[in-house]
Amino acid sequence: MDKLNKTIESIGSLHEDVMDKAQERLNNLLKPPGSLGKLESIAKQLSGITGEIFNRVHKKAIIAMCADNGVVEENISSFPKDVSYLVAQTMATGISGVAVLARHAGSELVVVDMGLDKDIAIAGIINKKIRYGTSNIAKGPAMTADEAVQAIETGIEITEKAIDSGVNLLGTGEVGIGNTTTSSAVLHAFTGENPDKLTGRGAGLDDEGLERKKEIVKTAVKINKPDPDNAIDVLSKVGGFDIAGLTGCFLAAAARRVPIVIDGFISGAAAVAAVKINPKAKFFMMGSHVSEEPGAKIIMKILGIEPMLKMNMRLGEGTGCALAFNIVEAATEMMNRMGTFADIGM
Amino acid sequence: MDKLNKTIESIGSLHEDVMDKAQERLNNLLKPPGSLGKLESIAKQLSGITGEIFNRVHKKAIIAMCADNGVVEENISSFPKDVSYLVAQTMATGISGVAVLARHAGSELVVVDMGLDKDIAIAGIINKKIRYGTSNIAKGPAMTADEAVQAIETGIEITEKAIDSGVNLLGTGEVGIGNTTTSSAVLHAFTGENPDKLTGRGAGLDDEGLERKKEIVKTAVKINKPDPDNAIDVLSKVGGFDIAGLTGCFLAAAARRVPIVIDGFISGAAAVAAVKINPKAKFFMMGSHVSEEPGAKIIMKILGIEPMLKMNMRLGEGTGCALAFNIVEAATEMMNRMGTFADIGM
Repeated sequence: MDKLNKTIESIGSLHEDVMDKAQERLNNLLKPPGSLGKLESIAKQLSGITGEIFNRVHKKAIIAMCADNGVVEENISSFPKDVSYLVAQTMATGISGVAVLARHAGSELVVVDMGLDKDIAIAGIINKKIRYGTSNIAKGPAMTADEAVQAIETGIEITEKAIDSGVNLLGTGEVGIGNTTTSSAVLHAFTGENPDKLTGRGAGLDDEGLERKKEIVKTAVKINKPDPDNAIDVLSKVGGFDIAGLTGCFLAAAARRVPIVIDGFISGAAAVAAVKINPKAKFFMMGSHVSEEPGAKIIMKILGIEPMLKMNMRLGEGTGCALAFNIVEAATEMMNRMGTFADIGM
Repeated sequence: MDKLNKTIESIGSLHEDVMDKAQERLNNLLKPPGSLGKLESIAKQLSGITGEIFNRVHKKAIIAMCADNGVVEENISSFPKDVSYLVAQTMATGISGVAVLARHAGSELVVVDMGLDKDIAIAGIINKKIRYGTSNIAKGPAMTADEAVQAIETGIEITEKAIDSGVNLLGTGEVGIGNTTTSSAVLHAFTGENPDKLTGRGAGLDDEGLERKKEIVKTAVKINKPDPDNAIDVLSKVGGFDIAGLTGCFLAAAARRVPIVIDGFISGAAAVAAVKINPKAKFFMMGSHVSEEPGAKIIMKILGIEPMLKMNMRLGEGTGCALAFNIVEAATEMMNRMGTFADIGM
C-alpha cells in the first residue's frame, strides 16, 4: 500500500504556464489558429506534462496486462478461457495484432502475466502472476482488497521500470477472456449507468450471450455491492488483475509525468479507476480510438478525452495505442519543425 | 482531351476474387473476425486494387496543387490572396504543415503551381501554371472548358509521373486562398444541397464573412448554371485550377490502380468530381480525416467512404493524408505479419 500511496501523492498538475507558451507558439505557426486540431492539443498537453515547449518521443512502450477472469464460467464470452494464454504467447512471439502494430510503430511491447490461469513456459513474458485467474464476480468478489493493491502496485512497478529505461510515451493493452464483462461491471459500479448501455458483444457474442452478459454485469454489482467512491473496492469486487494492473500504469505514468495512451474499453475502464483514485491522473492520459464496445463512448465522456482515431476496432491488446503513437510523434514534429509567420516576414 | 478520355476509359474495377481471398486470410488472423475494423477494410481494398493479397508500400507521395481564385475579390476569406503564394513557398522550403508531416511520414511532397497569381521564384515547385488565378465565379465562369481539361490533364500527368517513379501510395493536398468557397460551389452545383450546409468558415471567417460566403456560393451557381451531370462544366464554371488538377490525380490513380488518399474538404470536392466523371474512381480512394468544414461530411456520404482519423483538422494542404499513410502501412503490416489460428494449432 506504501508504493500506491506514494504514487498517488506524487501526481501533480500540468504546467499551465508552459502550456500558455506552447499555445503562443502554436498560434504563430504557419496555419490558421487551431486548424491542426488535435495535433495542437496533443502538443500543448505534452508541454503541460513535461514542462517543455518542444518535446521529442525517445522511446515508446505498450504495457499489455494478461489475466484470466473467473466469470468466464458464466458463459459470457465467445472464446474459451484458454485463448487468454494463447494470445499472451503470440504477443511474446511477435505475431499477435499488437505485437505487429507495435513493431510497425517502433514501440516496445511489455507483456505481463498478471494472473493467467496457466503457467507461461515461454520467454518474453514477465511473470507477475497474482493468482491463477480471479474468482467469479457473479458469485462473489473477484479478488481480495490486498490482491487489488498488489495488482495496482505491480502496474506501478512495471511502468516505473519502463520509464527508468528511457520510455517517454506509454500505451496500455491487455489480454483476458471475459475482461469486457469485468470492465462493464467496473463501469456499472462507478457510474450506476444501466448495464444495457455499458455491455457489448466483446469478441463476438450472439444476442442470447449478450443478454446473459448484461445479467451477469448486473448480478456482479448487486451481490458484491462495491462502493463507487472507493476504486480499490470496485476493482477488487468486480474487476480483474489486468484492469487493476493497468490502473497502476496510469497512476505511475501520471506520477512520473509521462504521457500514457488509453487503448480500448478495458484500458478505458482502468483509466476511469485511476481518475477515481486521483483526478489529476487524467492530465497525463491521451485517447487513441473509441472501441466499438458501447461503454467505450461513456468512458471517454467521463474522462473528457476525445480520441484521435475512428477505426471501428475492438481487438484490444493495445492495438489502438500502436496507431496513436505515430500521431503523437507527428504532433511533436509539427511543434518542433513547422515555420512561423515571423519566419516568412508576416 | 485525348489524355483525359484515355484515362477515364482505363479505370477498371476491383479484383473481387482477390478481395475474397484477402477476406479469408483476414478471418484466419489471430483476432475475432472484423475486430481490426478499418485496418481490415484497408487491407482488403488494397488487395482489390493491386490484385495481390499481400501488399507493401514502397514509396509515398502527396501531390499538392496550388492555385489562386478570382472569387477572393468578393472578400470571402480571412486571409489575403498573397498567402497562397507564401504557403506554396513554405511547402517547397519544408516548413509548412504538410511539408513537416509528409517528412514525418516518409513521404515525398510534390508541389505544383497550377495557377498562382504570382510567378514562383524558388526551386521545388513544378510550374504548370494555367493562368494567374481563375476568374471570379460570382461574376462568370472560373475558367474555360479547355482550361478545365488542361488542369485535369495536368493532374493526370503529374500523378503518372509519380507512379512511374515508384510511388504506390498517393495523397492529395492543395493551397489556394478562396478554395473552400469554390469547393462549396462545386458541391452545391453537383448536389443541389442548400449552400448553408456546404459552406464553412474556411481559415477562420467571422459570422458576417460566412453569410457573405454562402451568398457568393449561391450566386456563383445561379449565374453560371453548371450542368450537374457534366463534371467538366461544373469544374470550369465554379471550380478552381487546384480542384480540377486534383480531379485528374484521382482519375490517374484509379486508371493506374494506385490507392489515393483524400485529404480534406477541397480534395474531397475533387474526389466527388472524379467519381462523377467515372464512378469506378471511388474504388481506389481512401478517406483520411473529416475536415471541420461542414461540407466534408456530405462529401464522405456521397463517396460512401469512412475516414480513419478524427483530428478536428481543417488546414488542408494534404496534412490528413500524411497522418493516414502510417495507418495504411499498418494495415499492410497486419496482413503480412500477423499470425493465423492455424499457426498456433487452433
